[in-house]
Amino acid sequence: MNNPEQFLRAHIEKVISLTDEEAAFIISHFQLKTFRKGQFIIEVGNDVNEVYFVLSGLVKLVYEDQDAKQHIVSFAMEDWWETDFQAFYTQNKAQLTLECIEDTLAYGLSFDNFEKLFSDSRKMERFFLRKSIAGHIGSQTRILSFLTSNARERYEQLLSKNPSLLQRVPKSSLASYLGVSRETLSRLF
Amino acid sequence: MNNPEQFLRAHIEKVISLTDEEAAFIISHFQLKTFRKGQFIIEVGNDVNEVYFVLSGLVKLVYEDQDAKQHIVSFAMEDWWETDFQAFYTQNKAQLTLECIEDTLAYGLSFDNFEKLFSDSRKMERFFLRKSIAGHIGSQTRILSFLTSNARERYEQLLSKNPSLLQRVPKSSLASYLGVSRETLSRLF
Repeated sequence: MNNPEQFLRAHIEKVISLTDEEAAFIISHFQLKTFRKGQFIIEVGNDVNEVYFVLSGLVKLVYEDQDAKQHIVSFAMEDWWETDFQAFYTQNKAQLTLECIEDTLAYGLSFDNFEKLFSDSRKMERFFLRKSIAGHIGSQTRILSFLTSNARERYEQLLSKNPSLLQRVPKSSLASYLGVSRETLSRLF
Repeated sequence: MNNPEQFLRAHIEKVISLTDEEAAFIISHFQLKTFRKGQFIIEVGNDVNEVYFVLSGLVKLVYEDQDAKQHIVSFAMEDWWETDFQAFYTQNKAQLTLECIEDTLAYGLSFDNFEKLFSDSRKMERFFLRKSIAGHIGSQTRILSFLTSNARERYEQLLSKNPSLLQRVPKSSLASYLGVSRETLSRLF
């Protein structure tokens, strides 16, 4: 990651074009953060003060059920946003953990700065509207993938969207995302 | 439903306050529609030109899998928005059907008018941002409810959010929403 500012600006400019001044103003609201492989960015029960824009690396958002079984809600890699969105938006305690599968570089955007940005900048309000719509669409796709109850289809959907995941994610995590056992995964693929 | 315009205005004013003039301008973008019990508002493969704000009645959003088995993605009743959001936002063909469980009165908002409204009105852009965030949160909750894989918990979550659903929804639809057979539902509750 040579230039995080350029990377973030290019990401925002996929939705809205910015002047240099606007870009500098927007980026001043973000804080650059580095995390190590295995580090927890969010832990259950803690406050969720930030949403993260991943610059490089890979993270997983995990739900642990009453039997301490882990379920992967989503993966996020470079050019993606991730947090416990429910906790972040409603400013409640985290129900999910966010853990680094690889060393990760990300921009953190605090809840206050998120609210400031879309209040102070009509362009950023448009950007966040488009992004939250995309998040809503992504969630609907994931809900449908559960309803189809077909692990092979879920696997194919995941890989067509993120071909590099297969190389980067341990098989056990892939199985957890798909909602199948490690053994079933091996049998299927 | 005595006054649909007042009902819609009150709904929007939970997020942003409006002058009489603004409210009239906004409501002029919506079209009042009546649907009969059993009627399909959206069918698989068709264009999805509208998002619906339900004024009275009850609808279900359904995914039919390759084995012609029906899965209920969500229910929507008065004061809720519903459509095949993925198809609507991306202007692709419907993957889902939207069917009336009761006679239903709704405002339809076309995709063009949706885009016009948030371009012409900063207040409506704020409103839609809040609503799409709420949709994203709701979807995350539903994804988590699948991951917990506990039908009783899903049932309790559903009823705590919508206590009247139990009376209004046939048991077979409830089972389909929860992802269990009719027999399992009877055994559990």
